[in-house]
Amino acid sequence: MANHFRLLLIITLLFIIVFSTISSPSNGSPLSSSSSSVLSKRLPRFPRHTFKNPTRIQRFRGDGSGYKYETKFFSQQLDHFSFADLPKFSQRYLINSDHWLGASALGPIFLYCGNEGDIEWFATNSGFLWEIAPKFGALLVFPEHRYYGESMPYGSREEAYKNATTLSYLTTEQALADFAVFVTDLKRNLSAEACPVVLFGGSYGGMLAAWMRLKYPHIAIGALASSAPILQFEDIVPPETFYDIVSNDFMRESSSCFNTIKNSWDAIIAEGQKENGLQQLAKTFHFCRVLNSTDDLSDWLDSAYSYLAMVNYPYPANFMMPLPGHPIKEVCRKIDGASSDASILDRIFAGISVYYNYTGDVDCFELDDDPHGLDGWNWQACTEMVMPMSSSEENSMFPAYAFNYSSYKDECWNTFRVNPRPRWVTTELGGHDIETTLKSFGSNIIFSNGLLDPWSGGSVLKNLSNTIVALVTQEGNIIWIYDLQLQKTQSGLWSSEKPRYG
Amino acid sequence: MANHFRLLLIITLLFIIVFSTISSPSNGSPLSSSSSSVLSKRLPRFPRHTFKNPTRIQRFRGDGSGYKYETKFFSQQLDHFSFADLPKFSQRYLINSDHWLGASALGPIFLYCGNEGDIEWFATNSGFLWEIAPKFGALLVFPEHRYYGESMPYGSREEAYKNATTLSYLTTEQALADFAVFVTDLKRNLSAEACPVVLFGGSYGGMLAAWMRLKYPHIAIGALASSAPILQFEDIVPPETFYDIVSNDFMRESSSCFNTIKNSWDAIIAEGQKENGLQQLAKTFHFCRVLNSTDDLSDWLDSAYSYLAMVNYPYPANFMMPLPGHPIKEVCRKIDGASSDASILDRIFAGISVYYNYTGDVDCFELDDDPHGLDGWNWQACTEMVMPMSSSEENSMFPAYAFNYSSYKDECWNTFRVNPRPRWVTTELGGHDIETTLKSFGSNIIFSNGLLDPWSGGSVLKNLSNTIVALVTQEGNIIWIYDLQLQKTQSGLWSSEKPRYG
Repeated sequence: MANHFRLLLIITLLFIIVFSTISSPSNGSPLSSSSSSVLSKRLPRFPRHTFKNPTRIQRFRGDGSGYKYETKFFSQQLDHFSFADLPKFSQRYLINSDHWLGASALGPIFLYCGNEGDIEWFATNSGFLWEIAPKFGALLVFPEHRYYGESMPYGSREEAYKNATTLSYLTTEQALADFAVFVTDLKRNLSAEACPVVLFGGSYGGMLAAWMRLKYPHIAIGALASSAPILQFEDIVPPETFYDIVSNDFMRESSSCFNTIKNSWDAIIAEGQKENGLQQLAKTFHFCRVLNSTDDLSDWLDSAYSYLAMVNYPYPANFMMPLPGHPIKEVCRKIDGASSDASILDRIFAGISVYYNYTGDVDCFELDDDPHGLDGWNWQACTEMVMPMSSSEENSMFPAYAFNYSSYKDECWNTFRVNPRPRWVTTELGGHDIETTLKSFGSNIIFSNGLLDPWSGGSVLKNLSNTIVALVTQEGNIIWIYDLQLQKTQSGLWSSEKPRYG
Repeated sequence: MANHFRLLLIITLLFIIVFSTISSPSNGSPLSSSSSSVLSKRLPRFPRHTFKNPTRIQRFRGDGSGYKYETKFFSQQLDHFSFADLPKFSQRYLINSDHWLGASALGPIFLYCGNEGDIEWFATNSGFLWEIAPKFGALLVFPEHRYYGESMPYGSREEAYKNATTLSYLTTEQALADFAVFVTDLKRNLSAEACPVVLFGGSYGGMLAAWMRLKYPHIAIGALASSAPILQFEDIVPPETFYDIVSNDFMRESSSCFNTIKNSWDAIIAEGQKENGLQQLAKTFHFCRVLNSTDDLSDWLDSAYSYLAMVNYPYPANFMMPLPGHPIKEVCRKIDGASSDASILDRIFAGISVYYNYTGDVDCFELDDDPHGLDGWNWQACTEMVMPMSSSEENSMFPAYAFNYSSYKDECWNTFRVNPRPRWVTTELGGHDIETTLKSFGSNIIFSNGLLDPWSGGSVLKNLSNTIVALVTQEGNIIWIYDLQLQKTQSGLWSSEKPRYG
């Protein structure tokens, strides 16, 4: 049967992806990424919702009632790579077998690689998986990433996040091993050893999916890695890439908009240096409280522009914020369209309100303020996920900034008492000369990206072989829609045929 | 330059392998594998010399004066996969650059994956590498495996082997990461990032070479894995495989020899149950001291037969013991050729003396006696390297024995206070359905085996693709001689051409 499957199975993946890759703070966590901590500016960040009030989080596809799953827990080793006597922890996973063909029919297992947040958030925002499960007769599983959501070592978030020692097992390699052990055990329990596993993931979860396919080729037969910047390490891509793409997303809408933003940083500093300047800035930008420094405001704006570039969808959406379609166009329309006597800062406020207050129901803005930055992604950025970020004088609309590893390291030490290992990811997981490695080694990975997404700059953007396929949408963001047909050939490889972009 | 290399380089490997894969106890270690501990019988074992007196260890290729290398140390993370605040340790490595073409000429780097013993022992018994280095203009490096030789965490062997906590980082994954970090750093320091790395290893070191090529394809372009039983886990091969091959090595020489050995176990027990039976056995087998039980004798014999099957070379050699050519034939000649009134036990003693006393200078035999079994390989066998071993009633000349994981686990707990993870190796490194995985994923691995070697049963014995090549010598052991030409093709893959066995 297994043989029969391997020789004859034609997996036709009709990818009509409505696939969001949003992270959220852990349940009950007071932390948020739009923090003004010293670290936040220099740390890589993936999209996440910024509302603290969960009632304001709306699902992309209705109220989520279509997503039915069982919630279960799996006992995991805390350290897969040593035999130290450590307490096990419970990894949460969501499972839906409504459409599964079952083990004897070799029904596939679609595994979403949980990323840096609550797995329920990812599961209920990954409509694509729910849509294709019936077509493929697939079992859906969503294992949660350790140290996020309810998958907390040491029994509670408080204990897990206590210090560098308790946090020390929050690493990518441990998370990949969690997935490997989890799905191997799941298959055994279901007598489904012969059922193929296909990995899915977006953003950091997409990196996990790609890496998992490379490091555990015996566990999963293929991966769809969307918006997965696996090359955003060391010097593989220029450190200016991210902010250059964000800036270009504004430039393509309007050069005057770009220039207004580019000039606004000095205007903010000049205003801040005036007597009562910070009060005046707080007033101009409708903050509930006075600013501690102009950096608070600059970070708040920087954040908004970067996230806008990630979620610049052509239709109204409600991931990080409720936004109109083409939100950057709207922001620039406000900036450019202000009355001719409006100051630079008035224009900026008019523009940024599209992002922070599209619904118009915010009276004044609160700055998220987490002086410690002790959330899981910051820890990961301070250990393995060291993605150098600079802002160039020429192409960027942001203040010029050159990544400085030494101060990055110092700030990580001050925040977490940990030293980053900036070369570890490329040593363990590769990255340099990825083309050669993947060509002669990897197979069955789809890298999908929208070029408007600033993370696309660190992703794989061209086909490397018949089975390492890049799907690029010129005007796409982190969410895209496309069709793809894949066939499993007799040689055991997949070939892509007629990718169609929709 | 790198591109030029990749397109045009033709690597022709003329493998005239005289490649020994012998492990030795760590310097200063009192431990030896012919232990009579409860564990020893059920643990997998690779060849290692059994002399405690190092002056009796002779090099295969003369006195070793031809092997010139520098000894250096490299600072390593104790746990690559967590950020716990652990002390770094010094990994020893041997390096010879006499023949290296240098970085600018893209001279290759040949890396021997150090296995469970002193790296000097492996380096000076791997003549093959020294022979081919001049032909390829290769840099030779021999990094030592952590927790062996002088590469001791916590500053000393005593501290490193103190308990399960200090030993907990003695794992295969950590060792592979050591090699990856080491060679990445070495290449950077030599500005040799573009130089290709080729991995070599035999026995457990061969397993490391194969696994390293699979898990770190971006680090090394190919691997020669000799006598590497990467399939000797769980139920991938029958647990009787090992002892069946050993037994067959005797059967093919002489069925009466096989039968004498098969009958001897009961004879030993019967003798041991007599009054003063243990004294009589000690006398018959010339032990210096009385036996504690007949198991001591049975283990001593079992060990000898197993090792004889590994080193049954057609020429005189001196790896584990000084031995004549075709030593199993010699053993059987003694067993079969004893005078017609000789007892079974007299025959066995005459035979086994070929192994334990070929030089004739042993007056009485000492049983190595390590009641704790606290050597590194035993730890590895009690954690990850769980290789089930049974002895069948039908095909084996050894006492029937069915592998019992429960008692194996109990003994590991009693010895080390550690619980094995018997499924971890196949989860992390693969093994089940290896053919499919390697076919669609791996490349550039040579698995070489001699079919007389009992470890060959757990190895890859057939070509899986153009670049996953099995070299099998029908009458070979762990050492073999062959020619192989490999060409690096324009596609970046290697192809094997005209393998010739010599």
